[in-house]
Amino acid sequence: MTAPTVIRIGLCGFGTVGQGVWKHFERSRAELESRLGVRLELARAAVRDAKKKRGVSIPAHKLTSDPLSIATDPSIDIVCELMGGTGLARQVTLAALSRGKIVVSANKALICEHGAEIFETARRHGAHFLFEASVAGGIPIIKSLREGLVANRFPLIYGILNGTCNYILTQMEESDTPYQAVLADAKRLGYAEADESLDVGGWDAAHKAAVLTYLAHGVWVKTNQMIVDGIERLTPADFRHAEQLGYGIKLLAIISRDFATDELSVRVHPTLLPSSHVIANVNGVFNAVSVKGDVVGTTLYIGRGAGQDATSSAVISDLADAVELLKNDRRAFITARKESRNVTKKAACKLAAPQNIRGRYYLRLTVKDRPGVLAKIASLMADQHVSIASVIQNRADRPDAASLVLTTHESNEKAMQSTLVRLKKLPAVVDTPLLLRIADFAD
Amino acid sequence: MTAPTVIRIGLCGFGTVGQGVWKHFERSRAELESRLGVRLELARAAVRDAKKKRGVSIPAHKLTSDPLSIATDPSIDIVCELMGGTGLARQVTLAALSRGKIVVSANKALICEHGAEIFETARRHGAHFLFEASVAGGIPIIKSLREGLVANRFPLIYGILNGTCNYILTQMEESDTPYQAVLADAKRLGYAEADESLDVGGWDAAHKAAVLTYLAHGVWVKTNQMIVDGIERLTPADFRHAEQLGYGIKLLAIISRDFATDELSVRVHPTLLPSSHVIANVNGVFNAVSVKGDVVGTTLYIGRGAGQDATSSAVISDLADAVELLKNDRRAFITARKESRNVTKKAACKLAAPQNIRGRYYLRLTVKDRPGVLAKIASLMADQHVSIASVIQNRADRPDAASLVLTTHESNEKAMQSTLVRLKKLPAVVDTPLLLRIADFAD
Repeated sequence: MTAPTVIRIGLCGFGTVGQGVWKHFERSRAELESRLGVRLELARAAVRDAKKKRGVSIPAHKLTSDPLSIATDPSIDIVCELMGGTGLARQVTLAALSRGKIVVSANKALICEHGAEIFETARRHGAHFLFEASVAGGIPIIKSLREGLVANRFPLIYGILNGTCNYILTQMEESDTPYQAVLADAKRLGYAEADESLDVGGWDAAHKAAVLTYLAHGVWVKTNQMIVDGIERLTPADFRHAEQLGYGIKLLAIISRDFATDELSVRVHPTLLPSSHVIANVNGVFNAVSVKGDVVGTTLYIGRGAGQDATSSAVISDLADAVELLKNDRRAFITARKESRNVTKKAACKLAAPQNIRGRYYLRLTVKDRPGVLAKIASLMADQHVSIASVIQNRADRPDAASLVLTTHESNEKAMQSTLVRLKKLPAVVDTPLLLRIADFAD
Repeated sequence: MTAPTVIRIGLCGFGTVGQGVWKHFERSRAELESRLGVRLELARAAVRDAKKKRGVSIPAHKLTSDPLSIATDPSIDIVCELMGGTGLARQVTLAALSRGKIVVSANKALICEHGAEIFETARRHGAHFLFEASVAGGIPIIKSLREGLVANRFPLIYGILNGTCNYILTQMEESDTPYQAVLADAKRLGYAEADESLDVGGWDAAHKAAVLTYLAHGVWVKTNQMIVDGIERLTPADFRHAEQLGYGIKLLAIISRDFATDELSVRVHPTLLPSSHVIANVNGVFNAVSVKGDVVGTTLYIGRGAGQDATSSAVISDLADAVELLKNDRRAFITARKESRNVTKKAACKLAAPQNIRGRYYLRLTVKDRPGVLAKIASLMADQHVSIASVIQNRADRPDAASLVLTTHESNEKAMQSTLVRLKKLPAVVDTPLLLRIADFAD
């Protein structure tokens, strides 16, 4: 009988997530070792400040302030990159992969910006890059798309991918509180970063949409190739208007592909979703992903999208997969890995021009409260071939002004953008109009 | 450059699911081969009647009427057992496993009855048994529990595991139609089997609960060790009463474990679930599984629970996993496989005695419509230490009778069963009382 193999893991980044991984890993280590049939050692951790007090106790000799020294350490088998950012994190990732190590990452920004380079490096060196924690926290959505739903093509994937935005929207809706006040609360409670722009601007969700797009369609889409709208301009009144119309409002990432034309569209924007839809009722920091497969139909996944514990759960599942990979024949890596397929395969689909994306729209205008304004707006929209489906007129927050909420029949981005430009120029329109998209998803 | 390995697959059983697997597999074969780096061949299929016309065309030389000849064929690498039943299916499964083949199965009844023997046979012969299609159709719940949530222990798993029952309950609720009429419709539409007892009696859901229990807790629970109640005695009025109380009614499988006492309970019964709960709003043939992990929190999975396409999607994902296993070093099989851990490990938990299970209850009685009946019933329940939380009194369907719906504060099975026995003996109680459980799950 031989002694079990020892697998050595290095953590780069020891903030909230890194400490969570350490804590939960140590707690479940005995069971993991028994299930995986190996010994597991959290061998080293790279921290910014070795002297800082932490909630998790860690022997001093395991600490370093140089994450690259872990990535290049020949005794380390698996590197967890939990630093974030796209500079040093990229160096660490590429250094580890080019030494044939397995890298486990929660870094969606890095994957979105440098995914092609990362996966190509992994492929070339028989290494591997695992990233379950990068999208939708503890929900095993990456594994489900890649393995569980392997029989399917995916005409439509959409969902709530940013817990901070969903928390803010839920609070605005439930407590009728303006965006800025809810944001300030969210920062105090730790649900929003000091610099919130990556979250509320939709960019974090866009990074995650890029990761899902790669998995589902094998192509890398940059955020500047997507429509990305944030939640900053929503008001509590928008939730009331939406409710009157039978909708809730969620920041959705939407990845749709028409397999007839092979056109792909990826977008992130606040979206009116029918109130009865399950995802319209997913609140707070929860994430939800709806996946339509051409064989399985629609499957839906809901869970906590962020936070120390949910993210740790995803990182540890990648660690277990990494161990399985290490235990099997390394020769199998290059050909076996499913991610590499898409980088080298023909670019199967092309991006739809954003201006051609079709849909229904919600338009909120603040207009001078005088006769004839609605007629003028309706005529302007008719000129752009945008057909009005419904109108709600309410008092605005300012005197002598009215709030006008219009919904449209199906139109497209080009017509709506040109409508917006023209509306802004109307003397009767006193504020920049707000445009939201309506998604009449049935499931 | 060497020619790619050819992996040969045999299908045992070529009914609805078998034909679906063949159809979807052939359609996606080129992509699967490219992703997996092997050639895949659907080499043989065992059918009951080789001459029967089928929707899927299959070369005559590939057909056999003897599934055992496929299980023992040395040229076959993977055997899909899609026949159902626990007799010949068991023989085929054991024959294939004892020859080191990988078996892919959708047969929850077989797993529930003979799981220990199956997994032990697989372990002994370095074979493997995959069963994603056995629970919740196309939802990758097996993979999620085993791999995606590997960092977690599971204090609570519950959900809708039988699409036929959920279809019937949804129809009863939405169209206010009695059970027998809905059942007849369901049979006509192909949503229920000619012999419906396995589904509506809760046995199919109990088989699936046993599979999930094994995955989550490593022990085999027989259906005679569970509380298993069916949906046959529900009436449209029960849905109206439940709604008045703020609940929906679903047939739930509930697997709970108290990690302080290590007591496990597994049960299947119609359950009152708060109307606002996501699962209370999962309708028709859809399944839903809520999984509470001690690290990740609650994650929720929703999708079609049965049918040719959803089941095929799950079978094909197992086929892909089987190919990955075959491509890796066979030596890795015995130690690497996660299922085998639990059979050989200490029985970590014990079954809670069903009579000690605690909860709240819903009790519907038809009583003679005369004064003093409620007082008598209340006093009988007080004698059993069952405390009443609410009472609804309505006219019953028969003359001179009233329908009495009671809910209780927390009680236990023992007290409720002895209450039932005594209630039946009361002259004022004119029909066998109906007992339902209430689950105040928050998420």
